[in-house]
Amino acid sequence: MLVRVQCFNVSADGYGAGPDQTLEQPFGHPDPGPLFAWAGATASWPMRGEPGGTRGLDDYFTRDMHRSGHVGAEIMGRNKFGPHRGPWENHDWQGWWGDEPPFRTPVFVLTHHERPSITLGQTTFHFLDTTPEEALAQAKKAAGDKDVRIGGGVNTVRQFLDAGLIDTLHIAVAPVELGAGERLWENPDELTDRYHLEKIPSSSGVVHHLFWRK
Amino acid sequence: MLVRVQCFNVSADGYGAGPDQTLEQPFGHPDPGPLFAWAGATASWPMRGEPGGTRGLDDYFTRDMHRSGHVGAEIMGRNKFGPHRGPWENHDWQGWWGDEPPFRTPVFVLTHHERPSITLGQTTFHFLDTTPEEALAQAKKAAGDKDVRIGGGVNTVRQFLDAGLIDTLHIAVAPVELGAGERLWENPDELTDRYHLEKIPSSSGVVHHLFWRK
Repeated sequence: MLVRVQCFNVSADGYGAGPDQTLEQPFGHPDPGPLFAWAGATASWPMRGEPGGTRGLDDYFTRDMHRSGHVGAEIMGRNKFGPHRGPWENHDWQGWWGDEPPFRTPVFVLTHHERPSITLGQTTFHFLDTTPEEALAQAKKAAGDKDVRIGGGVNTVRQFLDAGLIDTLHIAVAPVELGAGERLWENPDELTDRYHLEKIPSSSGVVHHLFWRK
Repeated sequence: MLVRVQCFNVSADGYGAGPDQTLEQPFGHPDPGPLFAWAGATASWPMRGEPGGTRGLDDYFTRDMHRSGHVGAEIMGRNKFGPHRGPWENHDWQGWWGDEPPFRTPVFVLTHHERPSITLGQTTFHFLDTTPEEALAQAKKAAGDKDVRIGGGVNTVRQFLDAGLIDTLHIAVAPVELGAGERLWENPDELTDRYHLEKIPSSSGVVHHLFWRK
């Protein structure tokens, strides 16, 4: 069982999202497309409308993300659930993820403002006001012998990194610069005091970064 | 659902095994170790005795092979089950795979000499004297919405390739020459009339070859 970050996208300058997240711009950037283009071109991309797509290395990662059954629970920050700040004002709004969210596991949303759990399709969102350690303990219990995914965004990944709780990370670095926003790192080598790092360039232009604990 | 070859190892000159398979030498070669060294160095290698091992790209493939739950059935040639040729003389001998074979799915063994099915741990071996097409139909039925793995050896992979039945292949080409034996190809480019090919060098020295249908 691993605690892992999987298929997390950042720009060449280390940003996972632009500034000023809104309901209309979940990534706080007018066009986050270039961060995801590599995954969107694969056969396993879940939002793919038509058949086709590649089945090389990019697809291997994408398929593992969306179909493997490896992952038994996810932890995400509140901003991955929705753009609102402060107390919840409208419980009828149930997040960005639609009636059948792609997680299909328990999902633990870190927030200082708790609310009742929500079940949508095969996914149940639980809202926790607690530490990374305690959230992870609950997620591990829910995951059984499967992995726990730290789903992001950037601040959540950083919190779990700083607490020393992550076993492996797969970060896809896209060949585009954002220049501002939520920054995971200035340089991936910042993590190599604690992690091994293997960089694998893909023919799509993205460079897959695999980290695992020393 | 895919029909796939996964983590299949060949030498730089295209051999998946040496000649003269025996009970003591399942790979027909005094030391097949160099073909598997890349996988053996990973954290997810199931025969690993001690903790440790890498978690880079080689591990990603190895873990997916052994833990994903993607695969719902395997088809293998008789020589992957045991070294015997001709009619079965001893039903007490139940294959090379021990009391808990690593497949944990139905496994369909192609042979001209049928015998009753065997259940060992979570794996059931069925013995079929039939065509690749018919074996695949049975395996797909057993696999439900999961993948069917064409498990090898070389002759079995070739039969399914020649029948046009394989969707994707992951072949790991090791930096060692065998010079003789069971040959998958003279050159991987032989398949590029029918398949896309992405070659991904790993830091271990192996080159992962991913093929998918055009």
